[in-house]
Amino acid sequence: MDEVPWNEHGLIAAVTQDHRTDRVLTVAWMNREALKETVATGQAVYWSRSRNRLWRKGEESGHVQKLVELRLDCDADAVLLRVEQAGGIACHTGRESCFFRKLEDGRWVTTDPVLKDPSAIYKS
Amino acid sequence: MDEVPWNEHGLIAAVTQDHRTDRVLTVAWMNREALKETVATGQAVYWSRSRNRLWRKGEESGHVQKLVELRLDCDADAVLLRVEQAGGIACHTGRESCFFRKLEDGRWVTTDPVLKDPSAIYKS
Repeated sequence: MDEVPWNEHGLIAAVTQDHRTDRVLTVAWMNREALKETVATGQAVYWSRSRNRLWRKGEESGHVQKLVELRLDCDADAVLLRVEQAGGIACHTGRESCFFRKLEDGRWVTTDPVLKDPSAIYKS
Repeated sequence: MDEVPWNEHGLIAAVTQDHRTDRVLTVAWMNREALKETVATGQAVYWSRSRNRLWRKGEESGHVQKLVELRLDCDADAVLLRVEQAGGIACHTGRESCFFRKLEDGRWVTTDPVLKDPSAIYKS
């Protein structure tokens, strides 16, 4: 923890990758508490900048991310989580990955299918 | 470009992945200009927060990153670059990836070898 130079907002970038498919699933943020809880519980916990609180990934959707491996980059301002993704869905849109758009001829084109309707994931 | 909600510093996170090995190589930052030049030239260009200028990856080391695919995440505040990494070295420490440390029993352990001595990469 002390090797991490927590930035002015106390946050580092957290990249999450599926340990089986190697697909990059999400980019999110962690503060010290989120990183600590991730390691302690073995499940991904992020800091939600929009909600300004800890975000236990999957708390509503059930799409938890079980930590398989945690890596730190050279200047210690980003971590890489290799995870087992419950349900095979990381994105709130019901897709495998948040990176479901690809640049083609200057336009962002959606390349990934919705695997589960978000209204069936998030009960209101 | 207009779909990207450039943040208070005008930056988005840029995750770069080797398109052959699927290894996550680096996490860096881009401003509008960096993203534009990356797309225009087909080579990764980032914004260096420490040097406060455009950073054409490989400009000193020769370890350029040829863009194979560019993806955008759901809330458009991160991009994923899939690249061909020249020299097989992305990190300034002479390693394949910047994520060369892994958490083991509460300690960050270096798991990756130095492929080329940095003093041989960066001529002073």
